[in-house]
Parts: sequence; structure tokens; C-alpha cells
Amino acid sequence: MSKKQIKVGILGLGTVGSGTARILQENGDSIKLKVGSDIKIAKVLVRDLSRPRAVEIPLEALTDKVEDILENPEIDIVVEVMGGIEPARTYILKAMANGKSIVTANKELMAKHGKEILEAAEKNHVAIQFEASVGGGIPIIRPMKRCLAANDIEEIMGIINGTTNYILTKMTDEGSDFQEVLAEAQKAGYAEADPTADVGGYDAAYKIAILSSIGFSSRVSFDDVYFEGIDKVTAEDIEYAKDLGYTIKLLAIAKESPEGIEIRVHPTMIPSKHPLAAVKDVFNAIFVKGDAVGEVMFYGRGAGQMPTGSAIVADVIDIARDLTHDIQSRLNCTCFTDKKVKKIVDIESSYYVRLDCSNQPGVLSQIAGVFGENNVGLCSVIQKGSKVGKEVAEIVWVTYQVKEKDLQQALKELTSLSIVQQISSVIRVEGGVH
Amino acid sequence: MSKKQIKVGILGLGTVGSGTARILQENGDSIKLKVGSDIKIAKVLVRDLSRPRAVEIPLEALTDKVEDILENPEIDIVVEVMGGIEPARTYILKAMANGKSIVTANKELMAKHGKEILEAAEKNHVAIQFEASVGGGIPIIRPMKRCLAANDIEEIMGIINGTTNYILTKMTDEGSDFQEVLAEAQKAGYAEADPTADVGGYDAAYKIAILSSIGFSSRVSFDDVYFEGIDKVTAEDIEYAKDLGYTIKLLAIAKESPEGIEIRVHPTMIPSKHPLAAVKDVFNAIFVKGDAVGEVMFYGRGAGQMPTGSAIVADVIDIARDLTHDIQSRLNCTCFTDKKVKKIVDIESSYYVRLDCSNQPGVLSQIAGVFGENNVGLCSVIQKGSKVGKEVAEIVWVTYQVKEKDLQQALKELTSLSIVQQISSVIRVEGGVH
Repeated sequence: MSKKQIKVGILGLGTVGSGTARILQENGDSIKLKVGSDIKIAKVLVRDLSRPRAVEIPLEALTDKVEDILENPEIDIVVEVMGGIEPARTYILKAMANGKSIVTANKELMAKHGKEILEAAEKNHVAIQFEASVGGGIPIIRPMKRCLAANDIEEIMGIINGTTNYILTKMTDEGSDFQEVLAEAQKAGYAEADPTADVGGYDAAYKIAILSSIGFSSRVSFDDVYFEGIDKVTAEDIEYAKDLGYTIKLLAIAKESPEGIEIRVHPTMIPSKHPLAAVKDVFNAIFVKGDAVGEVMFYGRGAGQMPTGSAIVADVIDIARDLTHDIQSRLNCTCFTDKKVKKIVDIESSYYVRLDCSNQPGVLSQIAGVFGENNVGLCSVIQKGSKVGKEVAEIVWVTYQVKEKDLQQALKELTSLSIVQQISSVIRVEGGVH
Repeated sequence: MSKKQIKVGILGLGTVGSGTARILQENGDSIKLKVGSDIKIAKVLVRDLSRPRAVEIPLEALTDKVEDILENPEIDIVVEVMGGIEPARTYILKAMANGKSIVTANKELMAKHGKEILEAAEKNHVAIQFEASVGGGIPIIRPMKRCLAANDIEEIMGIINGTTNYILTKMTDEGSDFQEVLAEAQKAGYAEADPTADVGGYDAAYKIAILSSIGFSSRVSFDDVYFEGIDKVTAEDIEYAKDLGYTIKLLAIAKESPEGIEIRVHPTMIPSKHPLAAVKDVFNAIFVKGDAVGEVMFYGRGAGQMPTGSAIVADVIDIARDLTHDIQSRLNCTCFTDKKVKKIVDIESSYYVRLDCSNQPGVLSQIAGVFGENNVGLCSVIQKGSKVGKEVAEIVWVTYQVKEKDLQQALKELTSLSIVQQISSVIRVEGGVH
């Protein structure tokens, strides 16, 4: 045994930083037994030294100078919980150059600069862990890297953004509109003042890039992910979904096929009996399908001070165990292969299409004809009634599994038809049409 | 790097052994990338060398002499998939004494002799992993040891036996009787010819002993587990459960409180809206509640050739990674503390009690009186009608959270009343009464 105490520096004392500190303090005794040595919070970087804190950190451990952590020879592990690309990226690279191992919750950084960060860890012979970057406290990254290592992963599908799931749950349960529920979620603290990262699908895109990289052993970065947010989902779509036996969720989907891998985030209709349809509010759930294990699911709180802190401290414990026994980490980057990422036009899916058209004889067959000419097979059609004094009919179409490019071509042709007023919604359908 | 090839010996080539071999062969290329060295099946112990095999093993790798594995200096890792206590225990101890690391799926052995096995691993400086012993392919042991290490675990609750869950699902969906569904399950291959280990609750008891030991960092062995099987659950109970808004599942429950830990397996009524109520057929699901992470759930196929093989090969990969880098395992036994296990009479629970009594005035109040005198608070009562020409009334009682010993005392006193003909069923209720 080479070390009796492992010293940790924390960059940031916001929600997640405070949770991390609290857990290290409150569960310190049992953590010490698990690690075999003491884990001490040596320094915490804060912006304002004089601000009152929700968590008790000795005054001498607080600093507003990042060098006190990055260049402190006593510190073994740096926990980065600032978020965003800069200065987090620079700090992490400096810390690694100085021989420190890293624990980060930074999904944006890992999704955009994962290659650089992991290569720097390799080069500097330090460990980097990022369990907290996906699914909050839900164990998912380590289970995929280790517990499912025997499998070739075929598919990952999950709800990995709590804010949008909260909003969609409310919209579904209460029949309310997006804007209305968003305002409510902001008030309740479930959505940020600027909600773009969540409702625009960015956050889920970062996370699925990370999971896909691990699952397919091939680097997937943020630019490889096709993503849409939930801001265009309407109360009408949710109502139609219910009629059709579906629930709308913001799903992150990653699949591998001989033609390449596809990675996408978008509002998705799934059968209401699908286990993911029952995942409500801010909860997250991730299905992983392996060729040996079949489908396994991981479920829990995908965010929050203590759950995210739980994942960060688990990473700290893991690294601290290695340091205690003077072992060098050997499970940083697992992207051993280089797989082609499909373009969104090359994927296949079922689609729900809602459109307004003239309420006159022959319209239905004309539209169906355009779908047919473009190889878009139709599974079901709903025409409930008419709008605007019977001049406009709203029709909902659900297609079989078709090529995205064929669907897009059909939509393009439909838009140019004089009988079609507007295409109101296009939502992909997963889990089988019926 | 010290090794280019890791050699594995497998004890047993039944269902799980064959799955293990298949995965090591079929996914060998990607496993090699993950481990950093080749994993080779060096020897497989079989009973009959001439029997045809479902998996292709070179004839020279087969042996019917266990020494070819246990005393083979080339073999690094021994996979034990024979099951049962002996000779598995002796073989594992011998293999460890000869410096071999162990992967086992043997829940009975780990639940009954875990201490001995883990101490032997420690003494011989070898690794032992047993992910496959609980939940088949579902990652649960490593996630609990590592990913949830920051938490003090407060509760574990799950469906961890596929056979009984299949039977209870059929009984619930079809209204059939236990014996009828058991026969059907045996025909379908979901239940053994001798179903005792599953339907009697033994299998789940082994597994919860293992999970509790890890969760509470304190050795819980099979003898510490209170368990009941599902053989006394009747179609009537399931019908009443539905009326009351519950579903009956065989749950394994482990809780920690200041008075000690309680570990039990029994048929349990849970609210039909509880996520565990939706876990059907042979699927398993395990809730773990930590003080930081809150509740997380792990879900998947709890048995089967390939899922169980997936867990075993993950363990092999984990150990092989360490061996490749000449690192000694340091995460064998995690029972750092010694916690008191409560007796079943000292637990608290809600209860469903179904009894037959004389159909005459004053009976209800007399029975309620006995409950009351014993501090058993009543939440609901159902009397649907009468049996045997109106002479006998069947009454169902649901209690609030009460002490088991008080409930038992009340039942004892009720049995001695002349107006009570029989106590037909007593089933614990979890997840809140309503």
C-alpha cells in the first residue's frame, strides 16, 4: 500500500460540487473502508470566497485561484464540475499534465472533445472517469464498459434528459401546451431560465454521443449526432399519439447495422405498453441491447445534487482504490474501432405525419399516391373531421418502416401540391407500428 | 504488459458453460481489443467425453479429469459453472490454492460459504468474481460494489427468481392455480423437474444473501435469510389482491435500520402501479436505494444460457485485464462491518390476512377486537359473501404497518377462537397500504 490519504481538488461548488463534497464528508467512514485509505477534500475552487455555502468546507480549503488545485503537488484527483467547454477543458488538460487523475460530469466536453481528453489521459498515465456525465446517479458507463464487455452492443435507447421528460409527462397527463408546461417547469426548478440545452435536444445529444462511443467501441462525437428538440411537439400530437396507442418521449437512439451506426435524438412515439413509456417526470431510463445479454435496462434519477454526486464520488473511489494500491488505470478510452456513422437520410424508421389539406373528394388518394410513389408504405390513416368551416381537413398518417430519404422526398412533393396546406408535424415511431 | 494470452479452464459444459464458451469464441475479436490480450479456452471439464456438444470445443480441450484444470500451470482463470456445493467448493479452493483466479455463477455456494471462499481468495492473492450468481446477465454486483460505492445502501428490493415470476405472472393473467401453472412451466422449460429450489424460495434467498452482503458491507449468509416460497399462493389470493389494487410477486427484500438489517424472501403484495408489478414472466428487476442516489433499478433477463454467459465472460474480461497488466485484484470481499440481522418476528410490515369464520352477528367485531388488543391496526376489510350454505364467511383483512410478533400473536389467538374456522392466507404487503 503506497498511500494512506488521497487528496481531492474540486473545481466548482455549485449544485453538483456541493453534493460531491457532502457525500465525501457524510459517508467518509464507510468510503474509507471501501477504499482502504482516507479521501480528503484538499481544495475547492469557488468564484467568491465570502459567499455563504450550503455545505461546510473549512475556509482554508476554499480558493479562488485555480493554480492552488492544478499545480498543487499534494492533490491526486481533480473533480471538474464547472460544466461548459472553457475553461473546463484547459483546466483538465493542465491537471492531467501535472499527473492528476480526473473525474468529470461534463457531458458537453466529453461529447465534443472526448478524443483529446482521453488521449491526454493516456499520454499522462492518469485516469479519467465520467460516470456522472450520463444518467446522473444511474450506473451506466461503468456497467457498459465492464459488465456488458462480453457483448457486441446492438442498440441503445433511452430517456436521458429529465427536463424534457418532465415536460412531456405533464403535457401527456394534463393535455397542456409546450410553452405553458415549460414556464411551469422553469418555476419548479426543473428547467433552466435558458432552456435551450435541454428542450433543444443538445443535452441528450451529448449523452448519447458518449454512450455510443462506449457501446460501439468507436468514437462518436457531438457532430455525429442528429438531434431535434421537443419544442415543436404539440398538444394535438400528444392527443393523436394516445388515440394511436403511443406515448411521445424524447428518445436518444443508437443502433448498429452492417451499413454503419446511427445516432439520433428526437421526439419519438413509442407504444404506450413499452417500459420506456412508463418512465415519468424527471426519471431517466436506458435500454441497452447486447448480442449475448439481450435487453437490460437501467433506471433512476438522471440529475440532481445527490444522485450526480453519487456517481462522481463512485468515480473518485474507483480511482482512489487504484492510487492506494499504486495501480495505474487502464480503462480510459475504449474506442478500439472506427465505424461509419450514417447520415440521417440513410436511416429507416416509421413516421407519424400530420398535415392539413383541402377537404375535397380525391384528396386522400392523391396524397396516398405521393407516399406510394416514393416507396412510403402506409400503416394507418386518421381523418377525424374538418377545420376552418369544413374547407380544411386534418389527416394523420402512420407509415411502415421506410427510408428517411424517401419520406423526405414524399413530404417535399406533398408540400408542392396545391391541395396540401401545411405539414404540421413529422414524428418518428419506434417499437413497432400497429 | 506481462501476458499476451490468458488461459481459461471451465468446470462444466451445461447450459451456462456452453453459453460462456460460445461468447468467448463468437465475440473473441472484440473481447481481445477490450482486454489487450487473447482469452483462450484451454480446458473444459465434462462428464462424458464422447457426448455431442452444442458448442464447438476442440476435442483436445475437453477433459474428464478435473486435475487437468486445477493443476494445470498454464491456466490463469477457472470458471465454475457446475452449481451445488460439492465438489464445486473443493475445486474452487484447490484452484485458488494453485494461484488461479475464479469466476463462478454459484449462488448457493457464495450464499452458504461466501466467507470461506472470499477469505481463500484473499489468502492466495487471487481474484474471485461472481456477477452471474445474481440476476443472470443483469449488471448488479459490480454496479453495487463500484458504481454505488459512495452510498450507504438503505434498501434492496427485487424480483430475482425468473421461474416464480413466470408462474405468478401466469396465475395473475389467467386466474389459474399454482399447480396447474407449475406443470405448464415445467413443460415449457421454465421450471425444473424438481422445482423446490425455485418455488420454495431457496434460489431467491441465496441471491438476496449475496446482494445484502455487498449492499450492507456485512456478511449475510443463507442462514440469515427468512424465506417462504410461492406454493401457498392461491388463485383466490391473487383475485383479492387485484380487488385491493395489488399484484403478488415473490420479492426479495433487504432493509437496514438502526436496529439491524432484515433479509427476507416471500410472496408480497405490491401496489399494481409499482414498477416491480410490471416486471413479467422470467424477467428480473432489482431496486436499490442509496442515501445519495435515491432509487435505481436494474432490469433484464435473470437467467438463460447467453445472459448468464454474458455476466461470466464480463468477469473473465475484468480479471484478464488485471492479469494482462500484472495487477492483483483488490476488490474481493467487501464485508468490512458486522451488522446484526433481525429475527423475522422483529420486523414490521403490513399484512393481508384471509380467514374463514362463522357467518353470525358479532364475528367481525370479535376478530377486529383480537387484532386491536395485539396492536394490529386495520386498514381495510373485505367480506364478499358466504361459503358452505352461508354458514361460513370469508373475510380479508389488510393491516397497517405492524410488528410481525404482534401479528403472529393475534393470529394465534384468532385460531383458538371457536368462531374462526381457519386462517387461509397471510401475505405481507409492501409499498404502502391504501
